[in-house]
Amino acid sequence: MREAVLAIHGGCGAIPKAELTPEADIAARAALRRALEVGYAVLTGGGLATDAITEAIVVMEDDPSFNAGFGAALNRAGQHELDASLMDGASGRAGAVAGASRIRNPVRVARRLMEASDPLLLIADAADAWAAANGFAVVENAYFTTHERREALERMLEREWVDDISPASERDRHGTVGAVALDTHGNLAAATSTGGYTAKPVGRVGDTPIIGAGTWADNRTCAVSGTGKGELFIRLAFGHEVHARMLYRGESLEVAISGLVHGELVALGGGAGACAIDRSGNVSLPYNTEGMYRGWIRQGASYVAIHET
Amino acid sequence: MREAVLAIHGGCGAIPKAELTPEADIAARAALRRALEVGYAVLTGGGLATDAITEAIVVMEDDPSFNAGFGAALNRAGQHELDASLMDGASGRAGAVAGASRIRNPVRVARRLMEASDPLLLIADAADAWAAANGFAVVENAYFTTHERREALERMLEREWVDDISPASERDRHGTVGAVALDTHGNLAAATSTGGYTAKPVGRVGDTPIIGAGTWADNRTCAVSGTGKGELFIRLAFGHEVHARMLYRGESLEVAISGLVHGELVALGGGAGACAIDRSGNVSLPYNTEGMYRGWIRQGASYVAIHET
Repeated sequence: MREAVLAIHGGCGAIPKAELTPEADIAARAALRRALEVGYAVLTGGGLATDAITEAIVVMEDDPSFNAGFGAALNRAGQHELDASLMDGASGRAGAVAGASRIRNPVRVARRLMEASDPLLLIADAADAWAAANGFAVVENAYFTTHERREALERMLEREWVDDISPASERDRHGTVGAVALDTHGNLAAATSTGGYTAKPVGRVGDTPIIGAGTWADNRTCAVSGTGKGELFIRLAFGHEVHARMLYRGESLEVAISGLVHGELVALGGGAGACAIDRSGNVSLPYNTEGMYRGWIRQGASYVAIHET
Repeated sequence: MREAVLAIHGGCGAIPKAELTPEADIAARAALRRALEVGYAVLTGGGLATDAITEAIVVMEDDPSFNAGFGAALNRAGQHELDASLMDGASGRAGAVAGASRIRNPVRVARRLMEASDPLLLIADAADAWAAANGFAVVENAYFTTHERREALERMLEREWVDDISPASERDRHGTVGAVALDTHGNLAAATSTGGYTAKPVGRVGDTPIIGAGTWADNRTCAVSGTGKGELFIRLAFGHEVHARMLYRGESLEVAISGLVHGELVALGGGAGACAIDRSGNVSLPYNTEGMYRGWIRQGASYVAIHET
């Protein structure tokens, strides 16, 4: 029996410290703790990494503090388009949905698609229809909308209208939830779920449902879930690049992932972060933005933070 | 001025030699030659690799011999859903569309999206709408349908009806077109376009529009376009894996790509092939199926083949 470890992120689009109300701070930390506890209970019960990360992400999808599921960002048409993916490091199988608009918990569908991995990726209305036909909870698109996300969309469109090119608040731009785990059987797994970013073009898909970009897991190396400017994660094949640097260059997880988050991604101008874990249970939670909702848990210890702390 | 080289594939779902009529053989070879000539003319004129591969693929998209654009496979609902992507090895920029149903030449839209790479990937109806709004030719979905693809769908559904689990003919299963080039400026680029496979689930997306899976290009190493069982290409991060083995393990293109096509992909049971080119202009055209439509062209020499020849 290996020691079980779970790590999560709630996006590197953390609300700037000066803008974060005490209430929002408390709510986000409580949700991160709950996600860690729910996922960790799966692991300590001898469950699989794939199931632990699914349950952890469902908690965050259902919590409005994060940009995934309920509380997801609105696209420029005022609709939600949700992406999620999951990869099993033991088998190399994976599942994903992109542009779903009615699946209550996209990560659950990604988890199920992983089982056969054929099809591996379903998009748009067909993803919703597949989910409904396979017994998953489907909801009206408006279910995902919160007052805060509606205001964020209005702020963003207003900014464009007055041609204000100052960077939008990070909270309006990035946002994703992710989880990685090492289970007691020595298996690694990674999953990611998102609503994209506020006022994103209709039909735009980022790195979250792209295996090799926003999500990657391989028992030989690591499990990784990214958050940030998705197009850049795709161009770098971020998740698979971390894996390759470990496997072929012999880098540690920390060196490999920090090199990308503080190196290539900064050079390309992309706000970015990630949660990752290696086969020995080492956790890495790098980010190059002001903050990232994040945490980890293992026997006798846990950690939750938003900005420096 | 470097020597310019262009290589293409028309899918590893080549018609079995015994079933290929002389007429179909002649038509496919003529189309491959035309694609090579059109793309190579861009290169010898001092054009960019990204433009050369776009023009080569347009020829194949417009030709019914191949499963992309006109003559694309039909999904189980009798509709066409088209995927394409393109990556520029000089800048690392990329563009892609998935699940488009009205874009006449999906590779052209991928090429344009590559310019800003933001959004990088557009899906479903939104991809069609973006293409129309940006001046690309859009057509009715039925434009893509040929008599042969309609028959292939009927064969496939009939096979399921009688519960015939014998492997379907390769020609009904795989099929993709791809192109890679090295231009006179030393730039590499790769692009891929497909209709998926006959009777694919509605909304299923394979590796073709996934940067890092079906398409990858990096001036430091290689340009790669895959064809075959897309889900396996995604699980292996095929294109990026070839790149990583070259960059970090020092393998040659031939060793890296053959290792995957004849190694991991065979082990996973996936019919597969690819066209690839390295920074020195070496071409690799591996496949593990009965045949693959393929060819290359460089100064004073060209090659076209379907099966062994």
